[in-house]
Amino acid sequence: MSDTARRGDEAVDAALRQRLGRLDIATAGAGFTDITAGLDRWLGENGAGDGLITVLIRHTSASLTIQENADPDVLRDLGDALSRLAPEGARYRHSLEGPDDMPAHIKSALTDASLSIPVRGGRLDLGTWQGVYVVEHRARPHRRSVSLHFLGTFLS
Amino acid sequence: MSDTARRGDEAVDAALRQRLGRLDIATAGAGFTDITAGLDRWLGENGAGDGLITVLIRHTSASLTIQENADPDVLRDLGDALSRLAPEGARYRHSLEGPDDMPAHIKSALTDASLSIPVRGGRLDLGTWQGVYVVEHRARPHRRSVSLHFLGTFLS
Amino acid sequence: MSDTARRGDEAVDAALRQRLGRLDIATAGAGFTDITAGLDRWLGENGAGDGLITVLIRHTSASLTIQENADPDVLRDLGDALSRLAPEGARYRHSLEGPDDMPAHIKSALTDASLSIPVRGGRLDLGTWQGVYVVEHRARPHRRSVSLHFLGTFLS
Repeated sequence: MSDTARRGDEAVDAALRQRLGRLDIATAGAGFTDITAGLDRWLGENGAGDGLITVLIRHTSASLTIQENADPDVLRDLGDALSRLAPEGARYRHSLEGPDDMPAHIKSALTDASLSIPVRGGRLDLGTWQGVYVVEHRARPHRRSVSLHFLGTFLS
Repeated sequence: MSDTARRGDEAVDAALRQRLGRLDIATAGAGFTDITAGLDRWLGENGAGDGLITVLIRHTSASLTIQENADPDVLRDLGDALSRLAPEGARYRHSLEGPDDMPAHIKSALTDASLSIPVRGGRLDLGTWQGVYVVEHRARPHRRSVSLHFLGTFLS
Repeated sequence: MSDTARRGDEAVDAALRQRLGRLDIATAGAGFTDITAGLDRWLGENGAGDGLITVLIRHTSASLTIQENADPDVLRDLGDALSRLAPEGARYRHSLEGPDDMPAHIKSALTDASLSIPVRGGRLDLGTWQGVYVVEHRARPHRRSVSLHFLGTFLS
């Protein structure tokens, strides 16, 4: 792969430990809730150093995604695109929970249930313009539970 | 993130170990095979405590997804939705392996090849209504191989 | 799950360590760049044994996917399918960065930002016909940064 250059490699030989946690997220109905700062804060409060964080959403009508955090129109357009791919008007067998429920399951399958992100110095190793979002696919507000796992070194 | 409450945080300082494994899954043709109990059993047989499990499917015409385990119509509707997004009738260059093969690759790309799930007390930290599924995208039954990795504490 | 047989289980009790890294990938414009050999080389140069590698792309208009590495037409058809699901012709609010930017964000959301893959003997535990790809969704070539984390045993 001649077009590839390595940089930033580093050994991390300190003893590894892990931490489990959960976050509760209150969504405001269909749309995106930025949890990037919440994840960084959880890492900070737990003294995380270098390692890997895994985030899992414990629901199937809401999901996770990593998206641009600069222009909020990106998130609106993405929401519209998901609604075109999983329209409420389609004929679904599963309809008892309301016309927005089956589209919500489809949108969840098309995006992410779990994300794993390297952590450097207690911060998510994301690009400058990336944020981590809980995506609410139901029309109404919900309380969503996210499961967290950090593995790595700890400052304290 | 004022709308976020933490709960369930806990330190897990016991020595960390890992285990690699594989599962073979026989699918019955296009559709969903629930492997949640199989994953919990693999964790149990290996004495897993707290940690993180990663599941990777070693094929590109079948995939993984986390979906609702309550109403089986959700899975049928999701299968139909994927078939609308990746129809057999479309014009594909790659057609030698049959009309269901290229749609299977597209459906695999739209869902998941790997999933990482926090583990608490030897159990997947999923929500009540979540199951982990192998999704067969080919019409005929296949034998599918799943690669497993657990990192964490062990009971024995 | 009577249709499941286990094989290949093995304890790995050597001391666990981790390594962080990054790869820079030069893309040639819209399309797929195979980084499988680059990941295996990074593992080899770092003396990785058994464990888990996580790959995260640090952009939201390019993404990752695991796909067939045998017939290149699969990748062409997959690219076409993504363009049908996120067409340039649709009406987007976010248009200042060019007609290919918002479709690129949607395609990124539909594929993968992060992938975790078990590693055996320093090699990705993929199936024979699987490759790991950076997918460039913008029309022009870009330099893309990928964040890497390996956890496991080391040979040296």
